[in-house]
Amino acid sequence: MVKHAKTECDDAHFAVQDTLYVVGGKWKMMILSILVRFGTKRFGELVKLTGISARILSKELNELEQNKLISRKVCNTKPITVEYSATAYSKSLGDVINAMIKWGRNHKKKIREK
Amino acid sequence: MVKHAKTECDDAHFAVQDTLYVVGGKWKMMILSILVRFGTKRFGELVKLTGISARILSKELNELEQNKLISRKVCNTKPITVEYSATAYSKSLGDVINAMIKWGRNHKKKIREK
Repeated sequence: MVKHAKTECDDAHFAVQDTLYVVGGKWKMMILSILVRFGTKRFGELVKLTGISARILSKELNELEQNKLISRKVCNTKPITVEYSATAYSKSLGDVINAMIKWGRNHKKKIREK
Repeated sequence: MVKHAKTECDDAHFAVQDTLYVVGGKWKMMILSILVRFGTKRFGELVKLTGISARILSKELNELEQNKLISRKVCNTKPITVEYSATAYSKSLGDVINAMIKWGRNHKKKIREK
């Protein structure tokens, strides 16, 4: 029984690591929270909304695309625009995103109360 | 209405950032997932469970303690042992942790299916 409990524990905290391996880092969850909750955004809109530099944002979006968490669409406009959307797979992160939003809001409130 | 929607959006993704500001990085959520779900652990137990080096673990635990997410207790044993526990405040991260565990397990399953 003890061994089982340990295995359960191992599995659980390594599952946290598996999630962080894909969406960890400073910006990915923030970008996904926008695309999952508010739908398709153009590159320029994401720069404005997030405040992330174009160079870093481009790198982060590329990594998210490689992991099939977002899709990228080049639009034949003048000038050409690039749109990013959440995929069905990143939408499965909805619970993680919502829990983070809830906790972050509450945390900010607590800090302000001090 | 549009303005309101934008504000809501801003607030939500910055709330994600507020959460990551406190518990972001490679190890903090993993450490908290152990302490929140499985209760008090000694330093040595945390080294074994997480596989984090003693030096890094010590730094991470110190930061978590400063943010009142864990409490530290020095036990008068021979040799002296140090115990770490989740605080009520870190237990409020339960939803984030559980959502990450669920997603991570599912992600691993998907990867293995490939």
